[in-house]
Amino acid sequence: MTGKVYLVGSGPGDPDLLTVKAKRLIDEADVVLHDKLPGPEILGSIPEAKREDVGKRADGERTSQEYTNRRLVELAEAGNTVVRLKGGDPFVFGRGGEEAEHLAANEIPFEYVPGITSAVAGPGVAGVPVTHRDHASSVTFVTGHEDPTKDESAVDWEALAATGGTLVVLMGVGKLPMYTDALLSAGMAPDTPVALVERATWPDQQVAVGTLETIVDVRDEESIEPPAITVIGGVAASRERVAAFLRNGRNPADER
Amino acid sequence: MTGKVYLVGSGPGDPDLLTVKAKRLIDEADVVLHDKLPGPEILGSIPEAKREDVGKRADGERTSQEYTNRRLVELAEAGNTVVRLKGGDPFVFGRGGEEAEHLAANEIPFEYVPGITSAVAGPGVAGVPVTHRDHASSVTFVTGHEDPTKDESAVDWEALAATGGTLVVLMGVGKLPMYTDALLSAGMAPDTPVALVERATWPDQQVAVGTLETIVDVRDEESIEPPAITVIGGVAASRERVAAFLRNGRNPADER
Repeated sequence: MTGKVYLVGSGPGDPDLLTVKAKRLIDEADVVLHDKLPGPEILGSIPEAKREDVGKRADGERTSQEYTNRRLVELAEAGNTVVRLKGGDPFVFGRGGEEAEHLAANEIPFEYVPGITSAVAGPGVAGVPVTHRDHASSVTFVTGHEDPTKDESAVDWEALAATGGTLVVLMGVGKLPMYTDALLSAGMAPDTPVALVERATWPDQQVAVGTLETIVDVRDEESIEPPAITVIGGVAASRERVAAFLRNGRNPADER
Repeated sequence: MTGKVYLVGSGPGDPDLLTVKAKRLIDEADVVLHDKLPGPEILGSIPEAKREDVGKRADGERTSQEYTNRRLVELAEAGNTVVRLKGGDPFVFGRGGEEAEHLAANEIPFEYVPGITSAVAGPGVAGVPVTHRDHASSVTFVTGHEDPTKDESAVDWEALAATGGTLVVLMGVGKLPMYTDALLSAGMAPDTPVALVERATWPDQQVAVGTLETIVDVRDEESIEPPAITVIGGVAASRERVAAFLRNGRNPADER
């Protein structure tokens, strides 16, 4: 009898931010297929015997999406209850959509289990609401780390600047100079507040703030490294108004 | 001694999609301040003795944000551990940013506890990933139900159409004709796929699909009512490719 695949979001990394459902499914699964993104605390809580890492192959190369797709089908066809565990939410830059289509094409029953996306929680734990009645009527998530097989950037930074809403860039530390330049060229104000949140909700979470004009230097001075999210817009200034009473840090060193 | 306020997201409504942390905080809180948005299943699981509904006043009028702000401060100053429970995520069109600023201004320690936003989970449970490598490099959330005190729409639908990414409209059933017209006028293709998801993750969840040109009629024929989210873009066509093997419905009637 064919098993079932659960496409499960693990949230930003704090095990306490798993959903009740994700936690139960992980406990009950025969196999948990994962990469590194759920983070060491969540992965460390799963018995090794049922973990299968599809983030890296033994020879150190990245596992292909094709391999992961095939493996999900193979495990389900053998009757397993499979959790495909992904950082954040499976359907926010997680390639969960491709896995869902592959499963359906192979007639494997599957269920989507949403997770907390770091695009919302990352700014939030730094005291930055992604929307605000006074500052932002919309919020857009984009990735700073596009598919390298694409010929050119599919992201239209000029159109994004024109929305007037908050912009959240996932996996966008490395390309920060590229898109801050693009947004400045598109006419976004140089003093637009920007915040960087590294390893949001992890014990070693780091936050740094600046403006569209200064944030590349801030990144370098504060040694902000991937994984991190970038939040751009008036809302990023909220942090300074609330930080003194915000108790989201899991480690006093997270506030610098 | 001053208490503490937790701004907690309850997720889209399924109690299984509460985070482990939210569930624990609700159990341990002295008072849970809520409106109707967390939904009947989650609210029904909280002992009446510690629930305080700030969604409606006794005379049937809506409680003002000012009242809620004051009440949070008052309860915390009296030493209570207070959960301010909000549907979805507190910082996604939830006015959590305003509450955070009010708490900080009154020197009340607070913590933000993210929740699953229906802007991601709503499309997801209908088989629609908000981003997809082949169809959408960005996703934008907007509200269809703007602050009625604002003079004009702060949402620039033309700029949103130009992003080329997925658009998710929260609380957007009533104004569907307004913004589908605006997007068509902005040059978005009439055959752009659109899905409506009513009461995502609730037992009586409903999904309806159409195009930018047909969705108003579909809404009327299928009697889609608030609360619902609208997802616009190529990703909405994913549903037909996966629906036969998608096992997200909590009730067989959710697939129509």
